[in-house]
Amino acid sequence: MQEHRLPESAAATLLSLASRCHARGWAQATSGNFSVRLDAHRFVVTKSGLDKGALRAEDLLVVDLEGNPLTEGRPSAETPLHAQVYRRRPSVTAIAHTHSVAATVLSRALLAEGYVILSGFEMLKALVGISTHETSIRLPIFPNDQDVPRLAAQVDAELGGDDCVYGYLLAGHGLYTWGCNVNEAARHVEAIEFLLECVLHGRR
Amino acid sequence: MQEHRLPESAAATLLSLASRCHARGWAQATSGNFSVRLDAHRFVVTKSGLDKGALRAEDLLVVDLEGNPLTEGRPSAETPLHAQVYRRRPSVTAIAHTHSVAATVLSRALLAEGYVILSGFEMLKALVGISTHETSIRLPIFPNDQDVPRLAAQVDAELGGDDCVYGYLLAGHGLYTWGCNVNEAARHVEAIEFLLECVLHGRR
Amino acid sequence: MQEHRLPESAAATLLSLASRCHARGWAQATSGNFSVRLDAHRFVVTKSGLDKGALRAEDLLVVDLEGNPLTEGRPSAETPLHAQVYRRRPSVTAIAHTHSVAATVLSRALLAEGYVILSGFEMLKALVGISTHETSIRLPIFPNDQDVPRLAAQVDAELGGDDCVYGYLLAGHGLYTWGCNVNEAARHVEAIEFLLECVLHGRR
Amino acid sequence: MQEHRLPESAAATLLSLASRCHARGWAQATSGNFSVRLDAHRFVVTKSGLDKGALRAEDLLVVDLEGNPLTEGRPSAETPLHAQVYRRRPSVTAIAHTHSVAATVLSRALLAEGYVILSGFEMLKALVGISTHETSIRLPIFPNDQDVPRLAAQVDAELGGDDCVYGYLLAGHGLYTWGCNVNEAARHVEAIEFLLECVLHGRR
Repeated sequence: MQEHRLPESAAATLLSLASRCHARGWAQATSGNFSVRLDAHRFVVTKSGLDKGALRAEDLLVVDLEGNPLTEGRPSAETPLHAQVYRRRPSVTAIAHTHSVAATVLSRALLAEGYVILSGFEMLKALVGISTHETSIRLPIFPNDQDVPRLAAQVDAELGGDDCVYGYLLAGHGLYTWGCNVNEAARHVEAIEFLLECVLHGRR
Repeated sequence: MQEHRLPESAAATLLSLASRCHARGWAQATSGNFSVRLDAHRFVVTKSGLDKGALRAEDLLVVDLEGNPLTEGRPSAETPLHAQVYRRRPSVTAIAHTHSVAATVLSRALLAEGYVILSGFEMLKALVGISTHETSIRLPIFPNDQDVPRLAAQVDAELGGDDCVYGYLLAGHGLYTWGCNVNEAARHVEAIEFLLECVLHGRR
Repeated sequence: MQEHRLPESAAATLLSLASRCHARGWAQATSGNFSVRLDAHRFVVTKSGLDKGALRAEDLLVVDLEGNPLTEGRPSAETPLHAQVYRRRPSVTAIAHTHSVAATVLSRALLAEGYVILSGFEMLKALVGISTHETSIRLPIFPNDQDVPRLAAQVDAELGGDDCVYGYLLAGHGLYTWGCNVNEAARHVEAIEFLLECVLHGRR
Repeated sequence: MQEHRLPESAAATLLSLASRCHARGWAQATSGNFSVRLDAHRFVVTKSGLDKGALRAEDLLVVDLEGNPLTEGRPSAETPLHAQVYRRRPSVTAIAHTHSVAATVLSRALLAEGYVILSGFEMLKALVGISTHETSIRLPIFPNDQDVPRLAAQVDAELGGDDCVYGYLLAGHGLYTWGCNVNEAARHVEAIEFLLECVLHGRR
């Protein structure tokens, strides 16, 4: 497995994304997981069950696009959800999965509707390809499921690689979002978490 | 364009203002923009689309009071709103435009009224020229508009350089405020964001 | 005025108290002021209108117990309120005056009642002399007044040096609290601000 | 008492746990206390009444499983509650007792019910032994009591060493939780505090 060594720059990039999200309170108690693409066939993902505020390069491992580990260690249990995104969205190179209070509360409250609508906010322009606040995005909400391959298949069936989808929520669990580079993924997670807080405050 | 080099002190000052606002969570996901005046004809503004927590001197550029760039780079799309303030308020030397949850939520909720009234708070005394809490200020709310020159013209028509106006809100978008020096602009943004949080909490 | 030089330790202590409160968001936009007693006749107080996150020793000055400056500079406009406490509470050696969102919102909402009752909380034990949660303290609320000597006289008339009073609120303005040393004052401000947040959340 | 010297690693571990909780705002105003087990007969606990953001190794002391000090100093008044856990849960090696706004407000609001149910949240999986969100945990709420030995006896009578119990609340006071190592205790406190915030926001 020598050939699957983790490039230093990918590691640094991934650790920086995880650390930013942890500092914001979106990855408490070892929750959350993060990945970056290496190439058309492989990505790097955080190992299972680690404190996201204290990750080191050895806490990452390389997996293929089916989520099978190519280096030693147990990848995050949610690796199949990352793999689904990399398979169906060839331009995506980074994924953030966060657990915030706003995402947890809203995704439970709106599960029956099946989505959160984010509409008319200037902050929507932080999402790639959006150039006006006069738009709406639909953030699908899936019921949570511990059978992650089955959940990934459901996400795949419903969303595939749909370009209009910037992320989705798992009910009572958190947000998945991504980007064509780590900065874009970081921008998307910050923008969507900000908007979820606005929606939560606006409902009161 | 040699003659439009950015003075080091103006750069340091502007980066410090941006960094303070980013640290408070008011400029997430590359949102927000900041400027300082150089002289009667020019100001420095942040470039478009950058992370406000990691700005460097090369991320700033010089524009004239119509918002045309005098050094290389693409200025923030909202530069015309900065230019309107510098043209009509000769004593203003710094402008902060922030995107907070409180400003976003309140400006949407109160758009029909067209303003937020901030009244009776001691914190109003942080605004220049106010020496008692027994006063009210009116923070106008404009509908958001992606045609920024048109929006700037509307702000100009309605507010001009009115001394009683300490800032304004763009609905679902954020706050513009300013000062006769960077410390005053920083004080105004902190005071108004604090007061918007008080109003938001008080409404519940 | 050589004889009124500020002892280094008093300065360090006072700067540390101000800095702790600023970091918690309780002294935004140059709001808040802080003091420590030098002896039976003098105390040190922050100068007027400074950023509480960037205070230096030269931003402090010595005043007598009437609030008259003994060293150069303009003391905080609220110095008479500090002086009232030092005159009437001989054991007090440090005072914190903070402006938090919770204190601002609650003191306005409850001004008609004239007080906030803090009752049954374990955190009350952080207040000196309280050894059980089975107690209540009454935090008086005074209407805000820009005539600070008059306000200080009213506080003096109503509270004097009453040992059962741990602090008071000025409506729409903030909290005054104190201690027999700086650690006690810091503990009191943290405990009362925590309790005001609990009351604010509990009312929803 | 030479033989009861505090091992350096236990001290570092305990200080780190306290410091993490203090930084999150869960141990303000000297509130909260923390302990780690030394062996089958002794544990280390924070001394009474100290600022949890500035603890040093000399602020810790060794006590036996009845809570009697074996080194010099006054242990936290709540040491009997720590001792109850170490006696009845032999695998526990670290305990965190925190005072958050969410725990304080919820434990008062739900005291009549006698518990908070945490159900259906992905974050429950941060608790040891839980591998699905499709579960509920019951966080018992005890009335607060300044007679700590009596309170410890009540906790002992009602909970003993019940493996299904991950922690409990004292009404208007805070949370006790624990783990088989310090990381687990830290994960449990972060997870439970997160979930209490979700419940508090969800009730609005």
